[in-house]
Amino acid sequence: MTDFHTLDYRVEDGIAIATFSRPDKMNTFGLAMMQDLLDLFDRTDADDDVRAVIITGSGRAFCAGADLGRGGETFNYKPGGRAGDIDVDGVRRDGGGRVTLRMFRSLKPLIGAINGAAVGIGATMLLPMDVRIASAEARFGFVFAQRGITPEACSSWFLPRLVGVPKALEWVYSGRVFGAEEALAAGLVQAVHAPDALLSAALAHARMLTAKSAPVSVALSRQLIWQNLGAPHPMMAHRVDSRSLQSRGRSADVREGVGAFLEKRPALFPDRVSTDMPSFFPWAEEPPFI
Amino acid sequence: MTDFHTLDYRVEDGIAIATFSRPDKMNTFGLAMMQDLLDLFDRTDADDDVRAVIITGSGRAFCAGADLGRGGETFNYKPGGRAGDIDVDGVRRDGGGRVTLRMFRSLKPLIGAINGAAVGIGATMLLPMDVRIASAEARFGFVFAQRGITPEACSSWFLPRLVGVPKALEWVYSGRVFGAEEALAAGLVQAVHAPDALLSAALAHARMLTAKSAPVSVALSRQLIWQNLGAPHPMMAHRVDSRSLQSRGRSADVREGVGAFLEKRPALFPDRVSTDMPSFFPWAEEPPFI
Amino acid sequence: MTDFHTLDYRVEDGIAIATFSRPDKMNTFGLAMMQDLLDLFDRTDADDDVRAVIITGSGRAFCAGADLGRGGETFNYKPGGRAGDIDVDGVRRDGGGRVTLRMFRSLKPLIGAINGAAVGIGATMLLPMDVRIASAEARFGFVFAQRGITPEACSSWFLPRLVGVPKALEWVYSGRVFGAEEALAAGLVQAVHAPDALLSAALAHARMLTAKSAPVSVALSRQLIWQNLGAPHPMMAHRVDSRSLQSRGRSADVREGVGAFLEKRPALFPDRVSTDMPSFFPWAEEPPFI
Repeated sequence: MTDFHTLDYRVEDGIAIATFSRPDKMNTFGLAMMQDLLDLFDRTDADDDVRAVIITGSGRAFCAGADLGRGGETFNYKPGGRAGDIDVDGVRRDGGGRVTLRMFRSLKPLIGAINGAAVGIGATMLLPMDVRIASAEARFGFVFAQRGITPEACSSWFLPRLVGVPKALEWVYSGRVFGAEEALAAGLVQAVHAPDALLSAALAHARMLTAKSAPVSVALSRQLIWQNLGAPHPMMAHRVDSRSLQSRGRSADVREGVGAFLEKRPALFPDRVSTDMPSFFPWAEEPPFI
Repeated sequence: MTDFHTLDYRVEDGIAIATFSRPDKMNTFGLAMMQDLLDLFDRTDADDDVRAVIITGSGRAFCAGADLGRGGETFNYKPGGRAGDIDVDGVRRDGGGRVTLRMFRSLKPLIGAINGAAVGIGATMLLPMDVRIASAEARFGFVFAQRGITPEACSSWFLPRLVGVPKALEWVYSGRVFGAEEALAAGLVQAVHAPDALLSAALAHARMLTAKSAPVSVALSRQLIWQNLGAPHPMMAHRVDSRSLQSRGRSADVREGVGAFLEKRPALFPDRVSTDMPSFFPWAEEPPFI
Repeated sequence: MTDFHTLDYRVEDGIAIATFSRPDKMNTFGLAMMQDLLDLFDRTDADDDVRAVIITGSGRAFCAGADLGRGGETFNYKPGGRAGDIDVDGVRRDGGGRVTLRMFRSLKPLIGAINGAAVGIGATMLLPMDVRIASAEARFGFVFAQRGITPEACSSWFLPRLVGVPKALEWVYSGRVFGAEEALAAGLVQAVHAPDALLSAALAHARMLTAKSAPVSVALSRQLIWQNLGAPHPMMAHRVDSRSLQSRGRSADVREGVGAFLEKRPALFPDRVSTDMPSFFPWAEEPPFI
């Protein structure tokens, strides 16, 4: 079993719930949380009992950003300096980006349940999730420019695709902190709930997304949409669509899915993500860092 | 004259109207409809009397998806199996994608008038259209995951670009069917009308789009916007813009267009799509399937 | 000092204000305005006293499009014909595109304060700005198809990314002129103000964007978001993020920014865009025209 240090993990009726567990530290992000998140998505991808993953926080914060315990030296990484960092040709890979690129490749839908402050990496890690639901008390900030650094975790790629260019620029230039209603109006979050209704809303949403759907179909669909979000031409989708239809079109899942539809009964899909992903998956390598 | 098997075709005052004509089969999609749609856009592109194309359905459905007459074997394509399928290196090209890629290259604006159920390929074929107008009785569903297959017709490329990533993911994961008001709120359709006002609204919209515009300008503009939607850098637009301005800037159309504007009279553009597209068009080949 | 011919230039409390200054000509666009705009952004990028740039117009128009003094010959460019034109292999580069590609590379936030008619190049030059604020009397028109030409200034790339595909197509096909409220509803402008409140609103917005932020962070953030808007994969952002965090993470700015945050005082960032941009900047060449 994976041993997490910065989050609590449980699976409830097919939905994994990962809860950042250091409320006294405002669930700040460091190497331990980075490694936990990388391990988390390996675990949820491998576990067929997990249909979707909720990420939330305990206490007042979702994740209040980087741990600033080193003050002005916080971001002064030295090549070879910290266990867990990856240096490539003298360039340290941004840890936030390692997490969001892993989320990008997730085979299960990811749902952020933002219970409180989501600032810095606490805000940017939300962007490759499939849906974000906020407590009315949540606050958000892409505060990098106010600290003298720049947005990370691939947020310059994700944020304008989620909220549009003008709002992305406004939040990133100003670095200002804003509330749940502004996040909702801009499309950063998809719903706002009372604090004590947040987790149950996230669970209901997770079930709505997955209850009637074939797990392999959901996993392939997730990769089809996210991977094609940057594709230069719809032909890139057509290539994968054709292979996927040919493969899934002869599967046990489609016989069950079409059969159940014609018989007007719930489907019970036999195929599993751990064993039944098609041979052409993954259809694209992650581009190299350098 | 093209002989259509699954749709009725007429041209009314410069606007082509293609109406799916098998209401007893809920206008389900099969090889015959695929071929009709490929032929349809060849015909409308070639006919200078057609300024825009409306696609609608007869009866209760727009298009209720694939014909499921073969049950769980519906999507089990065998290489070389059906006349009309194209196999490339043992991979059958998705027929829905062949249609939407053809729509992508259309030289005339395409307007969906969704009169009823638009499900599966009936929903995904809407995405490369230029505008979608729905009857209040229309229903939509990207139901693939509920059938054990995956979204096709390049919809993973088109859908998030039209309605945003979170809504695209929600509809595709859940596979749930939804109504016209939800489609309108998400931007999937641009207007909702009473059922008996749908076609006249579509015709009025088609005329608004084209009445005062030069046909060659509209054809080039359509390709400029759709082709550049995946372009990695605005320079790709600049290259085409420069050639296009140079070419159209010495055309009979621009003399008429600027002249009419300065004289405050309606323009009568002489150039025709069939004969006067510039020599640099098309400026890009469709990428190969493999 | 740069000598401008078609605009007035002043800097007020850290914000540059460029005002098109030929109201008798409706601030129409020609070679002189093109050159002034290219020079303007070189000047504002080089001047550390400029934190953001407002572009507005004097009189009734913002910019009423190309100067049509040559009537139907206006767009009939002849290779080698006009001083200021650039011909590459017999193709004249679109002057509007030269301006918008220069805006794309700006290191300072650009704010359009659209006081009146913004038509043709007057509309398309707005698209690579970071925010657009309109007078209630402003009017907009992507009128190219009504003149027999095609949209320029890379607008086919920018416009659908700003207002979505259906609205971009509608405006470009029809060429119709529309008002500030429609522009606001579609997201083309971010706010509408009474005419006499427009400039003060633009100044307040410019200060909100920049007052608390490090200038080098803002410059890098601007390029991160705009350059990655066409990037095929988030890895392209991760490569730059990693280098940028490593570089800015050891800067004088981050020591001041984190220190000020921990001490709950305003930050006074020492680094300057003119001298302190990191060595890896620019991380990408502009693609060649041919």
